Amino acid sequence: MAPFKEILSCDELGQDRFRFAAVPSELPRTFGGQVVAQALMAAARTVAAEYPVHSVHGYFLAPGRPDEPSEHQVIRIRDGGSFRVRQVNVVQADRPIFTMTASFHRGDEGFSHQIGMPQELTPDEIAELDLVSGRTMRRLPDWHDWEMRLAPRPADAAPVPAVQRLWIRHVPPLPDDPVQHACALAYLSDMAMLRAARLPHPRRAIQGASLDHAIWFLRPVRVDQWLLYDQASPSAELGRALTQGRLFDARGALVAVTTQEGVFRIDRTAPADIPQRK
Amino acid sequence: MAPFKEILSCDELGQDRFRFAAVPSELPRTFGGQVVAQALMAAARTVAAEYPVHSVHGYFLAPGRPDEPSEHQVIRIRDGGSFRVRQVNVVQADRPIFTMTASFHRGDEGFSHQIGMPQELTPDEIAELDLVSGRTMRRLPDWHDWEMRLAPRPADAAPVPAVQRLWIRHVPPLPDDPVQHACALAYLSDMAMLRAARLPHPRRAIQGASLDHAIWFLRPVRVDQWLLYDQASPSAELGRALTQGRLFDARGALVAVTTQEGVFRIDRTAPADIPQRK
Repeated sequence: MAPFKEILSCDELGQDRFRFAAVPSELPRTFGGQVVAQALMAAARTVAAEYPVHSVHGYFLAPGRPDEPSEHQVIRIRDGGSFRVRQVNVVQADRPIFTMTASFHRGDEGFSHQIGMPQELTPDEIAELDLVSGRTMRRLPDWHDWEMRLAPRPADAAPVPAVQRLWIRHVPPLPDDPVQHACALAYLSDMAMLRAARLPHPRRAIQGASLDHAIWFLRPVRVDQWLLYDQASPSAELGRALTQGRLFDARGALVAVTTQEGVFRIDRTAPADIPQRK
Repeated sequence: MAPFKEILSCDELGQDRFRFAAVPSELPRTFGGQVVAQALMAAARTVAAEYPVHSVHGYFLAPGRPDEPSEHQVIRIRDGGSFRVRQVNVVQADRPIFTMTASFHRGDEGFSHQIGMPQELTPDEIAELDLVSGRTMRRLPDWHDWEMRLAPRPADAAPVPAVQRLWIRHVPPLPDDPVQHACALAYLSDMAMLRAARLPHPRRAIQGASLDHAIWFLRPVRVDQWLLYDQASPSAELGRALTQGRLFDARGALVAVTTQEGVFRIDRTAPADIPQRK
């Protein structure tokens, strides 16, 4: 349960190679958002500050072990005038666990548009509802510095759509460093993604695991302020589920878009699904 | 203007290295969808047929030259029980132009859901409209084997939303090979993506170029049958635009989801934008 700053701290072993110490955790497998956040930090260490990250695309190759350090080898794919592209390969004890490509852009003048933020209750309104209902969201113990408030849903919707919205923020203030905020956004962007896909399938024993993860960083963001994470799963089929997310700040700016596909298969190790018993 | 089969034909140079001949084209830069399709073919050549592709994530690193062959080096990232992961690096005369990671999955039993197909005119209905209006979509000369019918939009919408829908199919029948259809889907998935982002900015001189491209292959598909490509750009800012797409077959099955970010900056080489003259 390390503070976020410690999760991102690493030693340079030389030649764009970085080592992150094991982060104390109660999880059997490292939280995917942590792996993405650290890989982004490693890549950012090889790029000048005037090039903020604008996208990452990663694949999870094997579960991370929380009690082992990880080594991140960064490859400088492209150093262009406006863009920097980096590949990061993450290993634990020589075992590949994650590969990611990240692109950095100096920014430019262009034309602007964005979709609107969905109308939703504010975090304070949701907190009051939860105090009354006692209803809370299950959270990982690693996330003690993060506050999450899940927007209530109509109880009578049937079939249940694969859509959920939650407010998220990192409670302790983070430093005024855009790299830290981008990494914190990468971390939180993995939260609850597969949960959205599960909603239409209540009481089913589903085995889930993240396969890939992509983030587009669209506008400057502070992650120690409330963000609305609007998540929807357009599809589940053939043992996989896809979830897309949109992150808005409280003023309605679309700060990031995310996509994650996960394994979504029948868990044969679990007791029989309740609906199958009838 | 080669038939699609020729675009995908390649020679193995040994060690998972493939060479694609130059494809005759009138374009100054190779169409991005062709680069993605060829890279996917190269990756698929190293994977057994029982593992269909389920996702690709690529970055464009430099414009392709249509008059030069390209070499695709495939790296076997992971050979798991259910999954195969490949990285493909594409060079022309030793100049890197594209890097992509692709994942293949044997498929599994799971739980299913999908979003519905938007209500839209059929291709035949749109063709009749076009015969009356004379209105057609500008098409690349490379796409002579492809038929596209852009759904009409309400003329009075203001501001114009960054949304468009088009029916696409490959007119000559393609062989009953899922790999060919996946590659054909990769090819068409790059069509008109940036155009969706331009819609709210009519008469603006915009310099565009694809930066990244991701495809999630969700269900079996035939690309020589009509597909509805529903495209929407959630954001443009800082000289970049993002577009997300959904591909449905005529029966309403969601066969793929796509995302592409592109450069979207003021074109200073073009004559002054019309709206700025007033």
